Amino acid sequence: MIVTFITSNKHKIKEAEKIFQKFDIELKHANPGYPELQGTLEEVARFGAKHVVKKLNKPVIVEDAGLFIRALNWFPGTYSSYVQDTIGNAGILKLMENVTDRYAEFRSVIGYSAPNSEPKIFLGKVPGHISTEEKGNQGFAFDSLFYPKDSDKTFGELGLNEKNKFSHRQKSLEQFANWLISENSK
Amino acid sequence: MIVTFITSNKHKIKEAEKIFQKFDIELKHANPGYPELQGTLEEVARFGAKHVVKKLNKPVIVEDAGLFIRALNWFPGTYSSYVQDTIGNAGILKLMENVTDRYAEFRSVIGYSAPNSEPKIFLGKVPGHISTEEKGNQGFAFDSLFYPKDSDKTFGELGLNEKNKFSHRQKSLEQFANWLISENSK
Repeated sequence: MIVTFITSNKHKIKEAEKIFQKFDIELKHANPGYPELQGTLEEVARFGAKHVVKKLNKPVIVEDAGLFIRALNWFPGTYSSYVQDTIGNAGILKLMENVTDRYAEFRSVIGYSAPNSEPKIFLGKVPGHISTEEKGNQGFAFDSLFYPKDSDKTFGELGLNEKNKFSHRQKSLEQFANWLISENSK
Repeated sequence: MIVTFITSNKHKIKEAEKIFQKFDIELKHANPGYPELQGTLEEVARFGAKHVVKKLNKPVIVEDAGLFIRALNWFPGTYSSYVQDTIGNAGILKLMENVTDRYAEFRSVIGYSAPNSEPKIFLGKVPGHISTEEKGNQGFAFDSLFYPKDSDKTFGELGLNEKNKFSHRQKSLEQFANWLISENSK
């Protein structure tokens, strides 16, 4: 089986390649771009996958991810990268000052679409909590604010291999791969 | 001339009707919905207008608006309604605690599209500043945090008629109407 991953992010491709090898799925890569909707991660991924499959006429996946903070009504969510680029980590820490409930999760959604079929959605989550200050500089974006559950280090303090053990993207990619394999053995 | 305003917001339609009467433009109204992109107000309006004109095959306008705060790198911008629904006015005030530069503007963008032509964009702005506490309950969303320039009342304290004198939407609608009239007299 061959699937084309639509992304401009080389790090995501590497992560996916590693996982798909185990499943005997061949990963290709393309970057034609697609319109990103306002809405939930699921809506963004569904719309994106649908758009790209019409263009390329072969099976594709797109991925969308974000940080969801419970005490902030799950802000910044889908708009995590915009929020990172504007108010940044300092803004999140300010919003979380004196907030007791620090629960948060990273979520990743894979949208898969093949010609002439409806898109399918796969969700991966990592539960955790928001720190009271930035910790570590190994990650990017909100990594230095996020302690995954049962870890005494933030994503920003963990090396890539350690971080990947918890990765929300790993979970969504594995879910997708499992589903694809089982579909194809029917 | 007839133009169809694509919106689910009755308040916006009333505002537009009032303005267009002066210009002898007949306003119709429809609400087929359209995909809202992530991006600038201009990108959202352009994509929306293009999408709807293909469906309806007649001249249409869509509108997108937001609050842009300079000290927050123009956050919340395009995502104003999402930010209002999650962190709300309390979140904005917290982010602006101890911030000296309180400059902000409301922006409105009209996207106009007619069959077989590229969309046109019209921008209206109101400059002003962010209050240090909520004031007034006549408006909605961020109105009670925003003092338009040269006013000692927030949008939340001003009645609708007074508020409309400053309105960013009024400005973008008037720009559009002026342009349409001049195009049609060529």
